[in-house]
Amino acid sequence: VSEELLPPEELERRLQAIGEERYHVHHPFHALLHGGKLDKGQVQAWALNRYYYQASIPRKDAVLLARLPTPELRREWRRRLVDHDRDDVTSLRGLLPATRFAVDAYVAWVRDRSVLEAVASSLTEMFSPNIISQRVAGMLRNYDFVTPETLAYFTPRLTQAPQDVAFALDYVKRVPRSREEQEQVLGALRFKCDLLWAQLDALHFAYVAPGLPPPGAFRP
Amino acid sequence: VSEELLPPEELERRLQAIGEERYHVHHPFHALLHGGKLDKGQVQAWALNRYYYQASIPRKDAVLLARLPTPELRREWRRRLVDHDRDDVTSLRGLLPATRFAVDAYVAWVRDRSVLEAVASSLTEMFSPNIISQRVAGMLRNYDFVTPETLAYFTPRLTQAPQDVAFALDYVKRVPRSREEQEQVLGALRFKCDLLWAQLDALHFAYVAPGLPPPGAFRP
Repeated sequence: VSEELLPPEELERRLQAIGEERYHVHHPFHALLHGGKLDKGQVQAWALNRYYYQASIPRKDAVLLARLPTPELRREWRRRLVDHDRDDVTSLRGLLPATRFAVDAYVAWVRDRSVLEAVASSLTEMFSPNIISQRVAGMLRNYDFVTPETLAYFTPRLTQAPQDVAFALDYVKRVPRSREEQEQVLGALRFKCDLLWAQLDALHFAYVAPGLPPPGAFRP
Repeated sequence: VSEELLPPEELERRLQAIGEERYHVHHPFHALLHGGKLDKGQVQAWALNRYYYQASIPRKDAVLLARLPTPELRREWRRRLVDHDRDDVTSLRGLLPATRFAVDAYVAWVRDRSVLEAVASSLTEMFSPNIISQRVAGMLRNYDFVTPETLAYFTPRLTQAPQDVAFALDYVKRVPRSREEQEQVLGALRFKCDLLWAQLDALHFAYVAPGLPPPGAFRP
């Protein structure tokens, strides 16, 4: 790794390239889900496991909130916590262990890494409006058991995510003082893409092909 | 959950039952591996990912060693550290993210849970001589690129594991003072089985069926 600082626009270009290679919009399970190719049990398995990820976002944001050094930064992150923290608790019985391991790794990352890396790990929202609109439109069109209420979490994210990402992207372009810190930013986005991808791998393996839920997991 | 303390033999019987349901000896990838059904690239993928688990065992034992309250307990666990801590470091490039998430969850468990739960999570060694002898004998018979040296880590485990498990099993049968603590022991073994299983799920998905390594992972 060269020590030369990247121009902020080049850093942003490299973040984009990571998303183009690794974001879970490219996972075959996503295409099956929004394309209406899954049965109700498979969609239930997705919802159950997705819920654990979703329910952990406010945990993650609370951990980061506690670590942010200035009121300005904390106010920005407090808004995210409010956006995400809902109390429609569902049972986690039958959750895939792989979901838990991946999601818990995200919370641990935000707790144990630098604040810069913690903020940078939110940058998958650069790519999320696209996947969310595919998911919402496709699922409404293709599954008669899915209603707008079922997907109520996702719709406001279409407007919230761009606001969140504008802040975080500006932050990671502005704060790094060394190439090493810029590489940490890129590494944080790769890590986050990996953990989203791993969640769909586990769903695909358990419920699509070869279709082998691990012992104790939800069986449609 | 009833509050009545289980007789130690009943606790042991329930531990056995968890292994019979959940231990990764029942995973189809294990049968493919020792049955000679994998090609060299698939075995390399197994070795690469298995290495990360193996290399994390001394990290895990060091964390527990630091938390054990008496010299007797520390001496017992120190022996494990010596048994496992080898410095044949290999690159982790291409490691499956799911492997990292599962293995790191193990180290976090031993760090964050009670000492009783940490000790109990080692109880998969109740079942390991069987899987290790299947693995070693099968791989030597079925792959011309596998030699006894390749598998040198596993052979001493056949005699070490029973010694380790005798201590840990005695500990979890002797120490709990409530049914709740006994349930924690059973939960710890379930958790450990889950994380071993998740590692083979990830290998199977990436390298056998459907055979979709995630972005950035080793490709044979």
